[in-house]
Amino acid sequence: MQDKIDYGIAGYRGRLGSEVNNLFSEKGHRLVFSSDVDGENETSKPQVLIDCSLPEAFENNIKLVQRFNCSFIVAVTGLSENRLNDLKKLSERIPVVQSFNFSIGIQILLNLTERASDLLKDWDIEITETHHRMKKDMPSGTAKMIKNVFRDKDVNISSLRLGGVPGDHSVEFGGMGETLKITHHAISRRTFAEGILKSAEFILNKENGFYSFTDVVFGKENHA
Amino acid sequence: MQDKIDYGIAGYRGRLGSEVNNLFSEKGHRLVFSSDVDGENETSKPQVLIDCSLPEAFENNIKLVQRFNCSFIVAVTGLSENRLNDLKKLSERIPVVQSFNFSIGIQILLNLTERASDLLKDWDIEITETHHRMKKDMPSGTAKMIKNVFRDKDVNISSLRLGGVPGDHSVEFGGMGETLKITHHAISRRTFAEGILKSAEFILNKENGFYSFTDVVFGKENHA
Amino acid sequence: MQDKIDYGIAGYRGRLGSEVNNLFSEKGHRLVFSSDVDGENETSKPQVLIDCSLPEAFENNIKLVQRFNCSFIVAVTGLSENRLNDLKKLSERIPVVQSFNFSIGIQILLNLTERASDLLKDWDIEITETHHRMKKDMPSGTAKMIKNVFRDKDVNISSLRLGGVPGDHSVEFGGMGETLKITHHAISRRTFAEGILKSAEFILNKENGFYSFTDVVFGKENHA
Amino acid sequence: MQDKIDYGIAGYRGRLGSEVNNLFSEKGHRLVFSSDVDGENETSKPQVLIDCSLPEAFENNIKLVQRFNCSFIVAVTGLSENRLNDLKKLSERIPVVQSFNFSIGIQILLNLTERASDLLKDWDIEITETHHRMKKDMPSGTAKMIKNVFRDKDVNISSLRLGGVPGDHSVEFGGMGETLKITHHAISRRTFAEGILKSAEFILNKENGFYSFTDVVFGKENHA
Repeated sequence: MQDKIDYGIAGYRGRLGSEVNNLFSEKGHRLVFSSDVDGENETSKPQVLIDCSLPEAFENNIKLVQRFNCSFIVAVTGLSENRLNDLKKLSERIPVVQSFNFSIGIQILLNLTERASDLLKDWDIEITETHHRMKKDMPSGTAKMIKNVFRDKDVNISSLRLGGVPGDHSVEFGGMGETLKITHHAISRRTFAEGILKSAEFILNKENGFYSFTDVVFGKENHA
Repeated sequence: MQDKIDYGIAGYRGRLGSEVNNLFSEKGHRLVFSSDVDGENETSKPQVLIDCSLPEAFENNIKLVQRFNCSFIVAVTGLSENRLNDLKKLSERIPVVQSFNFSIGIQILLNLTERASDLLKDWDIEITETHHRMKKDMPSGTAKMIKNVFRDKDVNISSLRLGGVPGDHSVEFGGMGETLKITHHAISRRTFAEGILKSAEFILNKENGFYSFTDVVFGKENHA
Repeated sequence: MQDKIDYGIAGYRGRLGSEVNNLFSEKGHRLVFSSDVDGENETSKPQVLIDCSLPEAFENNIKLVQRFNCSFIVAVTGLSENRLNDLKKLSERIPVVQSFNFSIGIQILLNLTERASDLLKDWDIEITETHHRMKKDMPSGTAKMIKNVFRDKDVNISSLRLGGVPGDHSVEFGGMGETLKITHHAISRRTFAEGILKSAEFILNKENGFYSFTDVVFGKENHA
Repeated sequence: MQDKIDYGIAGYRGRLGSEVNNLFSEKGHRLVFSSDVDGENETSKPQVLIDCSLPEAFENNIKLVQRFNCSFIVAVTGLSENRLNDLKKLSERIPVVQSFNFSIGIQILLNLTERASDLLKDWDIEITETHHRMKKDMPSGTAKMIKNVFRDKDVNISSLRLGGVPGDHSVEFGGMGETLKITHHAISRRTFAEGILKSAEFILNKENGFYSFTDVVFGKENHA
């Protein structure tokens, strides 16, 4: 049913980029553009550009996607507020999916955290995230997404950097006589590649606008 | 505001019974009846009888509460289906609160588990419970409550018995690339005593009927 | 066999002080001195003074123990280097046991951590500690003891403050393909009171000197 | 320094077999034999045969290794006592490394567990293992190795089957007032492939005999 997709990857040689390429090519989709620090390789124009690179390459990738005039999936972690605003402006002209975490489990964790936070108003809260030693931003974008569930509350985030851990996140609520903890554990980066594939299938049929991965999973609408 | 309550405890000398008595007497309520394997001690008729004893004493406690014609809170763990049915019949004539776990956190865990089970239909599920070495029933009544959220699904429960652990429960969902876990940890039995106090305050104003601790926490109604 | 001990407690009304008093009096020992912010209560001279108070009271407690000329057990958390040095000087004249954590499990954790650190030299290390919201010092003294196992290595400590948690500590080693974690969980403050009782029995037969709780558990000697 | 190795893999298409082949070929070693349910493929005689298949193929693989007269690394999980005995007999004529788990971290866990079990004689013990839903044997061979540390003691093992989890193991000690837990988490099967590579390098220089992965890691000797 799903036709084959012509896709491009920025940050092609990175850990996430190569995982995405493996999954997409397994599914029969066609890599028609790739870029990395050592240059670009273009066969034809992609229908969707997937940005798995670092924030430093962001301005260049914005230019690329405008030249291609294609859908844009942004999986860069550690993007600044300014760059997020530029992305929202861009989304008036092309469909954009942006998230700091493309796992379905994290979407459920955010959803459960919101419900628990309504029910446990006077309990303490602690967020913890653990990632591999090569991760550059701290705390993780996902941990910040969890913190945002509590809005203006000042919630502590503990960041651990440990070997090759793909990514663990937990939020713990503590009362005087009991604690309640919700933990997400990514087994492999494959999980994120699968969320990005789901996003690519979602965005091809959408009008211009700014979509989150929550929209991809729960089917909500453009809110740029 | 809350008037003082005349309360009775069956299983008065047990771990939970004495915790309940400590909390209720701290709050200024009056112990007017107590019973245990070594006999009964009655000053006057209680407004509420709290059953913290073992299933073996259940028939006797049913007689007691009928004689007192007072509200009944049942915190006995390991009650059989038959005895639960007897309790429901009794609730036509007196107000009853029954639960295998009187902690608020467990109520939230059950609520979150229900939501997660809707969203993660094809993931594997594992329930784990850990309790002190003196706990006699296995798996815990609380673990069975969690399993019931999944209705007819055959969910595995692992039971661990370890030193003086007051009571831990977790439910874990596993996909191929990620896992999501909800864990409840009881810091002390005080937590259960506080839930029983909340139930006593709730039941004094209620008409005859069978109430769960979910009803006490979320304010639902008699469903015997 | 163990004769009854005449003991004194500084910080008598605190969480740890009252737990210590409960356990010692259960065992038939005699409280002959107690002090707290609101004053002192002296029946006779204690054989051992147990300091469960805050660092601010330290100078006063040093004077007390010199007046009593008795053994000294110091369970104050958050003592500065300077005060520890004063304590070592004092130990030339009286027997002293000092520790930031009087649980046997923590002693085993320290022991296992030392062995693991020898075997896993190039793995990353992360220490985490979680305590109740009233705990004032951060990171915990115990977390610092764990960090000291790694000597001059710069190891990160994450501190969580959560409801009524008595005290959890973990040390996690991370390689590229696997992680190894050692976790200690205090079920109740009773554990620390039991370690202090063990220390009191130990110190009564010892000559002047500075002893750690490691010495109490593993039977090593004075190393002031 | 290490010369290139000519290796063979039985169970070549399985999850572990392909992981081993990826790592060995990355390192420049040469696959000269492979077998699976659909047949064999032989270029030349291997210096070492690595058995990543199922117990059902064991007798056939024994014949293979005798024909090749080469070293033998056995990573099959769920081997019966009888088959292990056959393997020990075979090791009189060829060098054999056998383990149910080729991760270094598990070796450390076993080592720490042994030490802790000496120090915590009267505490309760619980072993837990979690693996992906495709794992056929239960409990895991590794969990049995952990249980063997406690010799004749009857220790409970809880087995969880959950999504795509590569393999987690924990052993928990519980006293009345505290618990101590040692947890190993495999991030990916790559870890096991690395232990098998280490074993291949080890076994090529060894005389006939039966070696465990403990011997490979800690350098002990033949104990068939």
